[in-house]
Amino acid sequence: MSFNIYFNDKETNARIGKLKTSHGEIETPFFMPVGTYGAVKSLCPEDLKNKVKTDIILSNTYHLYLRPGLEVIKKFSGLHKFINWDRIILTDSGGFQVYSLTKLLKKSDDGVEFQSHIDGSKHFFTPEKVIKIQETLNSDIMMIFDDCVEYGANEEDYILAMKRTTNWAKRCKNIKKNQNLLFGIIQGGFSENFRQNHLEEIVNIGFDGYAIGGLSVGEPKEEMYRIIEFITPKMPDDKPRYLMGVGKPEDILFAVENGVDMFDCVLPTRNARNGTLFTSIGPINIKKQEYKFKDEPLDANCNCYTCKNFSKAYLRHLFTSKELLSYRLNTIHNLTFYINLMKDIKKSIKNNNFLKFKKDFLSKYCSL
Amino acid sequence: MSFNIYFNDKETNARIGKLKTSHGEIETPFFMPVGTYGAVKSLCPEDLKNKVKTDIILSNTYHLYLRPGLEVIKKFSGLHKFINWDRIILTDSGGFQVYSLTKLLKKSDDGVEFQSHIDGSKHFFTPEKVIKIQETLNSDIMMIFDDCVEYGANEEDYILAMKRTTNWAKRCKNIKKNQNLLFGIIQGGFSENFRQNHLEEIVNIGFDGYAIGGLSVGEPKEEMYRIIEFITPKMPDDKPRYLMGVGKPEDILFAVENGVDMFDCVLPTRNARNGTLFTSIGPINIKKQEYKFKDEPLDANCNCYTCKNFSKAYLRHLFTSKELLSYRLNTIHNLTFYINLMKDIKKSIKNNNFLKFKKDFLSKYCSL
Repeated sequence: MSFNIYFNDKETNARIGKLKTSHGEIETPFFMPVGTYGAVKSLCPEDLKNKVKTDIILSNTYHLYLRPGLEVIKKFSGLHKFINWDRIILTDSGGFQVYSLTKLLKKSDDGVEFQSHIDGSKHFFTPEKVIKIQETLNSDIMMIFDDCVEYGANEEDYILAMKRTTNWAKRCKNIKKNQNLLFGIIQGGFSENFRQNHLEEIVNIGFDGYAIGGLSVGEPKEEMYRIIEFITPKMPDDKPRYLMGVGKPEDILFAVENGVDMFDCVLPTRNARNGTLFTSIGPINIKKQEYKFKDEPLDANCNCYTCKNFSKAYLRHLFTSKELLSYRLNTIHNLTFYINLMKDIKKSIKNNNFLKFKKDFLSKYCSL
Repeated sequence: MSFNIYFNDKETNARIGKLKTSHGEIETPFFMPVGTYGAVKSLCPEDLKNKVKTDIILSNTYHLYLRPGLEVIKKFSGLHKFINWDRIILTDSGGFQVYSLTKLLKKSDDGVEFQSHIDGSKHFFTPEKVIKIQETLNSDIMMIFDDCVEYGANEEDYILAMKRTTNWAKRCKNIKKNQNLLFGIIQGGFSENFRQNHLEEIVNIGFDGYAIGGLSVGEPKEEMYRIIEFITPKMPDDKPRYLMGVGKPEDILFAVENGVDMFDCVLPTRNARNGTLFTSIGPINIKKQEYKFKDEPLDANCNCYTCKNFSKAYLRHLFTSKELLSYRLNTIHNLTFYINLMKDIKKSIKNNNFLKFKKDFLSKYCSL
């Protein structure tokens, strides 16, 4: 068994589990910092281990396939050695990236032909190819190649995407040779019916974990919440549940309450580079004039390297001067905020007071 | 006494000394990483201490005066606390920056009026103002405000600049109130006569150390070497000698041989951001195709964090992908190269084999 639940919240669907991988165990629910090209932007592995204190990162199959390319990764027998990271790596399948980043040339039941967003070169992804790429990367957790459609597409598009995703999921499972974990992805847009049907199809194939795909694609928050609330409790209890690409702290709290175990999002890292920093009272923009003279940490409640060593005034100065150090200190802070949030969530579940923790957190936290 | 020489090379003018400051002692000869806006680009104080292992940085008076501005620094009682650096800081006087970066509006015996390179705002620097700024920064080593002229200026310009620098040096010394060190600057362009005369004028005023200004401003290397060789041994033996803005590893070796004790240069940090990395066989450009698959460190002889943890292939990947981590890992490597060079130089002087060390180093090292 690669996954065990050992604590269930009494009042909600929140739970604590442990996921075993080839590069160590990790307690759920957890958040994965995004390291698209094999580096969490501005951070080194030492920062991730000793400052951010994460046991897992997510990397992007599509991006690494294009740059540095698989021949390079092969030379290093996988991504871990190439990037000098000996802990857990999850890779997405590129399904969402070929849909959102590239010029799509042709999509068929066989796969997707697209043009690279870097140099316009043509490439063809099939489920088989995507698994081979992820096996070359040797990521501890691989994702099936899924078919993504835009928010607001018509019913036929969603039906076709689900059909293809199911078919591709089978092909991914069939071709997989190594012992790493493979997760299925549930599509179905914003129809509860579709979601329910697709969940059953994917679960029937059988995977090491299940992800909710196709959310956080531009829909109103209520739509996303409706689907999370509907589908999560129906997902297999004994497998990790991964909500892809979500989200804000309040979204994570909502999803954990409904039984989600895994998250990833570019928000903490991207916001860091835009100067938007998370604090216990909500995100602030560090470039504001009011911080110019502030000799106090970003967040008095934060124990991160940035807050323990630098003032708002210095962080503002670095950001307004476009100093490279700004991006690193901001990233350390924002990721620590997310990792600490997950830690506090786990603690509150174990103490049987998750709902109280959530309420207290949100009563102070004012979202943007 | 703030400076003591305790070892002289038998064969050359190279020497080992110790300089005492309000934030600790430092062994000479040493190299100062440049932290223009109060941060060595991409590095935090912890990197500087534990990875680069430097005891001193240089910051720019002109830049910090403009951004964040003195009112902010005052609020923190100086630069050390603002940037969280408890070791030594040297600040230049801004003389070279107002000449090289700004639109000069008016220069007179009184001072220099100029437009900020950031927003075009007008400012007026006098020797008195420049000392007050540096006292607000509370840098351990301050520099006098000097008058800079362009390479190839005519004799009259050089004579006027020397006259003004002497006059401004006196005014700087007179207005100085705190106990930090103040260094004079010797101008005089590329005339040995001028240099000799100006050295005498500045030494007669009396400072805690003396700098050679006006070199590395676009002249042929032989011209620079001629002046270094001529003037350095004539500078007071019992005071630190600082060669401003120099230079390449071979320049540093040449200057140490002639008795220089202190260096600063943007080369290791700027080159790092351009992908030009120093190695024991000379600088290499990490973006080259030939490194794409190279599973070996930048420099097998280097003990830096970058070389101990990452391959050329990964460094190339980060640089070509414009990953922020690239700039930090490259900067750590290049600064470590410089700091190690100074360490090796000191060791060789103490072992009475500086010339042999220099010869061996240069026989392997192929400059760009």
